Amino acid sequence: MPDACVKLDYTLACADAVGPHGLAPSDFDSDALARIYDQARRVAPQWGFTQLPARLDSADALVGLGDTLAKECDDFVVIGIGGSALGNITLHASLNPPSYNLASREARGDRPRIHVPDNVDPVLIASLLDTLVPERTCVNVIAKSGSTAETLANFLVVRALLEQGVGAGWTDHVVFTTDPEKGALRALGRELGIRMLEVPPNVGGRFSVLSPVGLLSASVEGIEVKALLQGAQAMLERCQCADWRANPAFFNAVLHYLFDVRKGVRMNVMMPYAQSLREIADWFRQLWAESLGKCVDRSGQPIECGLTPIKALGATDQHSQVQLYVEGPPDKFTTFLHVDQFPVTTTITPAFKDEAAFAYLGGRTLNELLHAEEKATRAALAKAGRPSVTISLPAVNAYYLGQLLFMFELQTAYAGELYNIDAFDQPGVEQGKIFTYALMGRDGYADARRELEGMQLSNPQCVIA
Amino acid sequence: MPDACVKLDYTLACADAVGPHGLAPSDFDSDALARIYDQARRVAPQWGFTQLPARLDSADALVGLGDTLAKECDDFVVIGIGGSALGNITLHASLNPPSYNLASREARGDRPRIHVPDNVDPVLIASLLDTLVPERTCVNVIAKSGSTAETLANFLVVRALLEQGVGAGWTDHVVFTTDPEKGALRALGRELGIRMLEVPPNVGGRFSVLSPVGLLSASVEGIEVKALLQGAQAMLERCQCADWRANPAFFNAVLHYLFDVRKGVRMNVMMPYAQSLREIADWFRQLWAESLGKCVDRSGQPIECGLTPIKALGATDQHSQVQLYVEGPPDKFTTFLHVDQFPVTTTITPAFKDEAAFAYLGGRTLNELLHAEEKATRAALAKAGRPSVTISLPAVNAYYLGQLLFMFELQTAYAGELYNIDAFDQPGVEQGKIFTYALMGRDGYADARRELEGMQLSNPQCVIA
Repeated sequence: MPDACVKLDYTLACADAVGPHGLAPSDFDSDALARIYDQARRVAPQWGFTQLPARLDSADALVGLGDTLAKECDDFVVIGIGGSALGNITLHASLNPPSYNLASREARGDRPRIHVPDNVDPVLIASLLDTLVPERTCVNVIAKSGSTAETLANFLVVRALLEQGVGAGWTDHVVFTTDPEKGALRALGRELGIRMLEVPPNVGGRFSVLSPVGLLSASVEGIEVKALLQGAQAMLERCQCADWRANPAFFNAVLHYLFDVRKGVRMNVMMPYAQSLREIADWFRQLWAESLGKCVDRSGQPIECGLTPIKALGATDQHSQVQLYVEGPPDKFTTFLHVDQFPVTTTITPAFKDEAAFAYLGGRTLNELLHAEEKATRAALAKAGRPSVTISLPAVNAYYLGQLLFMFELQTAYAGELYNIDAFDQPGVEQGKIFTYALMGRDGYADARRELEGMQLSNPQCVIA
Repeated sequence: MPDACVKLDYTLACADAVGPHGLAPSDFDSDALARIYDQARRVAPQWGFTQLPARLDSADALVGLGDTLAKECDDFVVIGIGGSALGNITLHASLNPPSYNLASREARGDRPRIHVPDNVDPVLIASLLDTLVPERTCVNVIAKSGSTAETLANFLVVRALLEQGVGAGWTDHVVFTTDPEKGALRALGRELGIRMLEVPPNVGGRFSVLSPVGLLSASVEGIEVKALLQGAQAMLERCQCADWRANPAFFNAVLHYLFDVRKGVRMNVMMPYAQSLREIADWFRQLWAESLGKCVDRSGQPIECGLTPIKALGATDQHSQVQLYVEGPPDKFTTFLHVDQFPVTTTITPAFKDEAAFAYLGGRTLNELLHAEEKATRAALAKAGRPSVTISLPAVNAYYLGQLLFMFELQTAYAGELYNIDAFDQPGVEQGKIFTYALMGRDGYADARRELEGMQLSNPQCVIA
């Protein structure tokens, strides 16, 4: 694959292109960056997720299981939330057509529909149950800890449907993906003889898309998981270069870090110009926000760190967000995702050529129009002095997607080094879990219940009704 | 409907609940706010969108047309973008179940599937075309100006499919929604005898959900559009009160304004705790960002105004964004959307009660769990000193949804008064449109083409490949 790789173009991040909101050469402290990069290169092999691309052997087993499950069901339901759902959604949306679930089984390559109901909304789940036939439904329950409330609740709901439909054989319709040793799901799976896959203990949920967490549903829907891993491996090798300026993941982390600390940027917008990549922005939101939204650094100093990641979509959001991006506060750094070659060409059949509003469109393609809109938006933002970077994919396929996802994972971990924070924990979500357990009456949470009862969450004087 | 209305609870926006990041009574300049409110009350009747709720008469005609179209097709395609799509998507997602398009026609109340492909992505459109049967497809093309590039391009693509399938009769499968007099679509519709609906000239796209723009597809799918309008009317009347503190839309605008100018807040997060309301946050993003993202005020003074609206979703984003919201920079003000009563109750069937991770869940409902998660998250944010406001709906139905959407429209227009900016124009999107026309070779854009050619959008020295 010479010359065909994911590329990073930061022309429009530079002051000479966009003026004072851009970065000047003097904003880069090369010695300090080189030092941090050396340190990052030393520790990167210990980051659990960097060990995933090499696991091509276990991919064989996953593909086998995926093919088996694809025959066993017409609906494949992934029950997970956060890092146990977003990777699945991203792979599905990126590599299968938007109408996948609406198409016939034959048009889906003899594979089942895929559902990832990643919420405990009663309407969402009831509506899904209405469409399922238990005899032809398989379920992948994903929870690294084995105890995530939302996941176990949805599992109990779907399990009851399965048991009602197929009796004790419901266990054959289920696969657990969880810690290899610990947790309630692992114990239950052993007891009931349920098929199980492992979440590597040193890989956190938001870095797990290329583990069995993301790859089983991908296999079920016929995505080339080996090509995903090969793409990730290619990016990993590329990011082992000695010069930090040649490492796209590290360089992009540096750009974001410098826009934050030097330019007052508060938000990083990700704007794919490809409908298929829209969910990547959502997956990235979790990856970035949970990794870098931290209140202390590694030495315990208060920091209140974290650009806020924003999901946008070209060309759609030109008619929604671009007014604000162009004229509002200069507090954003935008990442455009560009695709060189779409898998189809959709021609704009000419008609009504006497009318100026139609004439220039007829005979062109949607591919050309979308590319023109992207270029126009990049230029308009640059003209307004707003910085951006463009990441290009030769095409949206499993190999390049593997490169891209892995690049973002590395970029996020590198950013943790730049900020000197722990990018792999998430202490800020614990309080909400504790309060939820308290409100649901889980044993052992009486103190939290009392604490909640002591908080005035609603004061009648502050209600307008 | 006494006592049952959309409520605003700002307890957790106040300093006495959340500490220094909250608003203190001294942050409110009551005299100035009362003056601005008086002015807003005077001009509000001239805002075009405030005249829409009273148009119950035209709703009858719309419902009639919607019922006719529902019989004529199995797939109803809305072709529009921005304000000509987001309202349709919001009404559909809020008031019909998530599996609507996957269900049988009978389960849909003998109504067609609904598609709103609001992008010019070649894969998106090709994938949609694959699922359509021309004889049983109807299309609503929505463009106020009649010249939106994306909309006309997609129309040309879908029109060709229709003509291929049904010949000259394709015109019977199409409805145009556009300006009553001007533009290419109006002229074409007259020439070809196509059914047409009017976008009121004084109603901009982002305020048009309760006009024929949003209401035709709603009628086709059986949504009670009269109840929507009645809800909006009820909110309009409520917001004509003399005291600004009793007007929920104005008060919420004041909260956002004060968090911006007094507290350094840069983002307003909207976090519905209801899957059905998730698209409201997207609709609101356009409404708020295009209305308030402005670089000059009404006196021409530079201002670079605009909080950035962020779409979140409870409980899902607890596993994605909440870490950042709790521990990251105190630059956000969160709006929770709460639903008292869901249309279904989904029980968590008990099982595995010996295991602590399952025991507390069995026998409860997803409804309870989602409410607990919401309360826990509000409390956890408050405990971390992060302010929020909660808007409650008694239920998600057309009447309360009408109240809510109309409240957000009023709130946005009021915010324009507080910032002293024009909330109804969008000059910042023109440059991108001009560059797109230039790149697509539209007549009359040679200057812009030359300007683009003179810009260095990509410098090989700034590409990492």
